[in-house]
Amino acid sequence: MSATNRQILLNAHPVGFPVETDLKVVDTPVPEPGGGEILVRTIYLSLDPYMRGRMNPGPSYAKGVDLGEVMGAQTVGQVVTSRHPKFSEGDIVLSFGGWQQYSVSDGKGVQTLDPGLAPISTAVGVLGMPGMTAYVGLLDVGELKEGDNVVVSAASGAVGAVVGQIARIKGCRVVGVAGAKKKCDYVTGELGFDACVSHYSETFPQDLNAACPEGIDVYFENVGGKVFDAVVPLLNDFARVPVCGRIANYNMTEPPPGPNEVPRLMGMILVRRLMIRGFIVYDRAHRQADFLRDVGGWIRSGELKYREDIVDGIENAIGAFQGLLRGENFGKLLIRVSDDPTQP
Amino acid sequence: MSATNRQILLNAHPVGFPVETDLKVVDTPVPEPGGGEILVRTIYLSLDPYMRGRMNPGPSYAKGVDLGEVMGAQTVGQVVTSRHPKFSEGDIVLSFGGWQQYSVSDGKGVQTLDPGLAPISTAVGVLGMPGMTAYVGLLDVGELKEGDNVVVSAASGAVGAVVGQIARIKGCRVVGVAGAKKKCDYVTGELGFDACVSHYSETFPQDLNAACPEGIDVYFENVGGKVFDAVVPLLNDFARVPVCGRIANYNMTEPPPGPNEVPRLMGMILVRRLMIRGFIVYDRAHRQADFLRDVGGWIRSGELKYREDIVDGIENAIGAFQGLLRGENFGKLLIRVSDDPTQP
Repeated sequence: MSATNRQILLNAHPVGFPVETDLKVVDTPVPEPGGGEILVRTIYLSLDPYMRGRMNPGPSYAKGVDLGEVMGAQTVGQVVTSRHPKFSEGDIVLSFGGWQQYSVSDGKGVQTLDPGLAPISTAVGVLGMPGMTAYVGLLDVGELKEGDNVVVSAASGAVGAVVGQIARIKGCRVVGVAGAKKKCDYVTGELGFDACVSHYSETFPQDLNAACPEGIDVYFENVGGKVFDAVVPLLNDFARVPVCGRIANYNMTEPPPGPNEVPRLMGMILVRRLMIRGFIVYDRAHRQADFLRDVGGWIRSGELKYREDIVDGIENAIGAFQGLLRGENFGKLLIRVSDDPTQP
Repeated sequence: MSATNRQILLNAHPVGFPVETDLKVVDTPVPEPGGGEILVRTIYLSLDPYMRGRMNPGPSYAKGVDLGEVMGAQTVGQVVTSRHPKFSEGDIVLSFGGWQQYSVSDGKGVQTLDPGLAPISTAVGVLGMPGMTAYVGLLDVGELKEGDNVVVSAASGAVGAVVGQIARIKGCRVVGVAGAKKKCDYVTGELGFDACVSHYSETFPQDLNAACPEGIDVYFENVGGKVFDAVVPLLNDFARVPVCGRIANYNMTEPPPGPNEVPRLMGMILVRRLMIRGFIVYDRAHRQADFLRDVGGWIRSGELKYREDIVDGIENAIGAFQGLLRGENFGKLLIRVSDDPTQP
């Protein structure tokens, strides 16, 4: 066991794009669990776009990280020491361990994972929060119907890839939006989307228009910015826009230029009977059993695929997170903080 | 019978606020109904804000009025001549007769009214399209729940008054927004709203804030403009905004100043899990029986009141419509084109 616990703390609230000095790597002693507590060694640390919001001062839908505090994150880890009746040494657990090598927990909200059921990393990916976000966002919030024309942004990402595949499984036509060519190729070649448009293209709005000859019935919004601007004119009557993220806007310090007047948008919402609904996956926990049954089944049958982008070493979390905000990851981004004992 | 049929035609597409010369009064011969047709004398002509949209060129959710064509409108009238097996002379009917004294119809979409059930004017008001708009907009689109904090704009109007009273009947706290003091007094004194705020006040945003100490769960949007701007910061998590009209914006030739950036609104939609949904009452015809049962019952029990603003003479329709767009009417605006034979 390493004698130290390497942690990454919030050092400053970023102004715009987070720079390296907004975070700080520190080495502290591995903590001792008290009575009723467990010590967990982090295996996988999940990096997700929502974390950018937690770095800001002031409240969002969840409490932010205070300066000097360890950055929060869902983690998959292994119990090293247990003084808790529910957990044994060696258990693989899903918890909110944060950006660090070791964490202590009183067991609240900690879930034991069965490595025989699925690779343990999927508990923070396709079978975890990102997958569930895709599932409830598309089916419940987006009110998906067979035959819908669906557009998904960040199409090769942790959420987008699941959105598009569920839509395909449900008999919809699916167009993805992604950046790099290899991502677009993956989305159409591997995941079976009907088309994928690159937002790097100078003719992106026209490309998207051409890829959606029957307009858009559901736009799964998780990027904002110019993708949203290009989507809005293509929305059909009764289109639905589940809003789950706006990553392109997270680092903005002022509003972007462009067609951004609320009255224009609201006029369209009325005339086209649009629905735009914000949602957060944690509000919809009652759907978890359905989600695990369906998506778990599709993974087992091979109907639904997933891809992980694994970076080794906690000290690389800062650079990887910056890359995530720039769209450089390819698949669900994970930091492998220590060896996964369930993998050969 | 008058020998002529006075009609009001669309003369020009208005640029901004409609001026008198955008419409034209003409006298034409009373038309002769053919086989299978009826001739209807207009009694009540319904004037409604949506008509401003129909005066524009280009399509909205319904076809606009062509230049030289009679302005469209729902009307309550009496059958003068019938060559249609379903209708008899003297029948009181609801039809889309337009801004004119007489209209000919093949009976399609024409509904016979029973004057014994309710005053015939209510068929274009509280028991007609405006009442149904309030009903489905609040209950279905707005997903009203007991205890909700509800804000209604145009609170003394044909739609707003019904919205607020249904919300009260359903156990909600209701705040109205209206202009003139007499309207605010009516809304709180007669209709039983908990409070009413005047948008004429120089401190309107603060007044609204003070009137909504627990924020807003449902905002029934039918005015837009500065009322919408003042509402947005007060919306609670999970607030719902059924969008049924934006009268303050109908005559705009450019976007208004103010906090109108889409990214800001969208950010709030996400963080507060807002739902903004446009809807049009005609999409929800399946709820008509429920609507008539409930609202009819509440009117009979005295729980729900309504007010009409009746102007005599078809030639006064233009001025009355301009007044409607300025918010000068007080209650559901009707033109009495000819005597109502069912009234003493």
